[in-house]
Amino acid sequence: MLAGEDYDPFDPELVDARITARRLLRKFNDELDYADVEGRVEVLKQLVGRANWKKPPWIEPPFNVNYGFNLTVGDFFYCNFGCTILDETKVEIGHRVLVGPNVKIYAGGHHVDPAVRSGRGSSLIVRPVKIGNDVWLGGGCLILPGVTVGDGATVAGGAVVTKDVEPNTLVGGNPARLIRRLEPGEPRDKPPI
Amino acid sequence: MLAGEDYDPFDPELVDARITARRLLRKFNDELDYADVEGRVEVLKQLVGRANWKKPPWIEPPFNVNYGFNLTVGDFFYCNFGCTILDETKVEIGHRVLVGPNVKIYAGGHHVDPAVRSGRGSSLIVRPVKIGNDVWLGGGCLILPGVTVGDGATVAGGAVVTKDVEPNTLVGGNPARLIRRLEPGEPRDKPPI
Amino acid sequence: MLAGEDYDPFDPELVDARITARRLLRKFNDELDYADVEGRVEVLKQLVGRANWKKPPWIEPPFNVNYGFNLTVGDFFYCNFGCTILDETKVEIGHRVLVGPNVKIYAGGHHVDPAVRSGRGSSLIVRPVKIGNDVWLGGGCLILPGVTVGDGATVAGGAVVTKDVEPNTLVGGNPARLIRRLEPGEPRDKPPI
Repeated sequence: MLAGEDYDPFDPELVDARITARRLLRKFNDELDYADVEGRVEVLKQLVGRANWKKPPWIEPPFNVNYGFNLTVGDFFYCNFGCTILDETKVEIGHRVLVGPNVKIYAGGHHVDPAVRSGRGSSLIVRPVKIGNDVWLGGGCLILPGVTVGDGATVAGGAVVTKDVEPNTLVGGNPARLIRRLEPGEPRDKPPI
Repeated sequence: MLAGEDYDPFDPELVDARITARRLLRKFNDELDYADVEGRVEVLKQLVGRANWKKPPWIEPPFNVNYGFNLTVGDFFYCNFGCTILDETKVEIGHRVLVGPNVKIYAGGHHVDPAVRSGRGSSLIVRPVKIGNDVWLGGGCLILPGVTVGDGATVAGGAVVTKDVEPNTLVGGNPARLIRRLEPGEPRDKPPI
Repeated sequence: MLAGEDYDPFDPELVDARITARRLLRKFNDELDYADVEGRVEVLKQLVGRANWKKPPWIEPPFNVNYGFNLTVGDFFYCNFGCTILDETKVEIGHRVLVGPNVKIYAGGHHVDPAVRSGRGSSLIVRPVKIGNDVWLGGGCLILPGVTVGDGATVAGGAVVTKDVEPNTLVGGNPARLIRRLEPGEPRDKPPI
């Protein structure tokens, strides 16, 4: 799974893992009071990889992740509400990353050949996703399997990212393209995209 | 409604139908334990059309559909989490269809003339949606009213599909355009879009 | 906050305001029966600005808004399910506005310079959003910070709106561009986009 090899998602161990993740997510999304910060961080420690944070991650409910254990996030991680992460293989997120609302990160998809796809399980294709340090993923954007987003990049709201994003660049659109290279001292009044 | 004629969505019978659907969805999304497979399939049989499946559909919660009874799905239907279907009229989905997370299918919209639109109810325009056999709708894509997606097609992640999609093609972008025709024996290592 | 000045979102008063909003939203989304119209309108009156409606707004659950008190909606407001509003500053919505499912309106974002962004709080950039009268925001569209949508406009499904939209126009795509000017007497059989 972590090697990026295709696998059968109906393997009983993986079914169990999804049940565990969904129960933790129900607690996180539907049961804990919003003011119960410790309770929420406790769930995130059980759900998400790399629990020795200097500062634990903050994720706004509702949040959806398929397994959780394939997702690692760095320090000072903030993720706004309504995000979805398909961690069918490794999803590695760096330090000081901001994720806007309704962002979607998918580390798995299917074969485009319908003859292959109709075979159960064998149709799954997984590719790791890596988000560097100091990245901002704008609200509603979508990161597709196999994509690496470089350090310091900004992905514009609603962008659909099909290819790697270079460090310190701004990308946007569907499919996402380079809008410009980001320089130190970008003016504060310039709108985000 | 099924004839694709415009109608008043505030008709008491339709209001009741939406109440029934919402209560079933709350059970499905919020109350049943994720491991309760039979319970979930039971709700889907009440909610979604065509209940004589060889293999019942599997839909990951959370799922949203406006009525349910206008939606029919074939055998071996799989729909990942966070999907929304507006079945204001018929939404017909074939066999062996895979629906990624956060997919949106809308069979209804409104008139673009604001003078018409401001009249309650009369502003609704419904057009049936048809998804063929062996289709994969990539995560986060959007299918607009009146669209037919041909057998064996793949809709790329995040695509906004405004026109019919030919069989055995890959479409993507906003608005979605043909990326390429799919041939048997597509290489396995080629990324989905 | 309403002046569009940047501010620290971790100010205790704002943390409290978000807790209040989330508890009202949980009641609205997860607890009230769908048929309890009065209960739902009561929550909306507490959550959303401008409570002296001729006709109170109708919002389908699930709905997410960060504060609520920065959001004002006019008469005859209808918002379909799965919508997200980031009211980090003023989000002003006119009369007779229709909002499709999965629409996202963001009045806040971050600085694109990662050096600025990594400083907590100071990285927030807020810009008011204004939606005119008689507007239809098509399903799945995204309105970015600082955007004004003119009276009578239609935003096509899945559009990503980065710039102001002129009155009585149809815009679509990512980024959204003018598709055409809307004339009285648009034919009814013309598809929405």
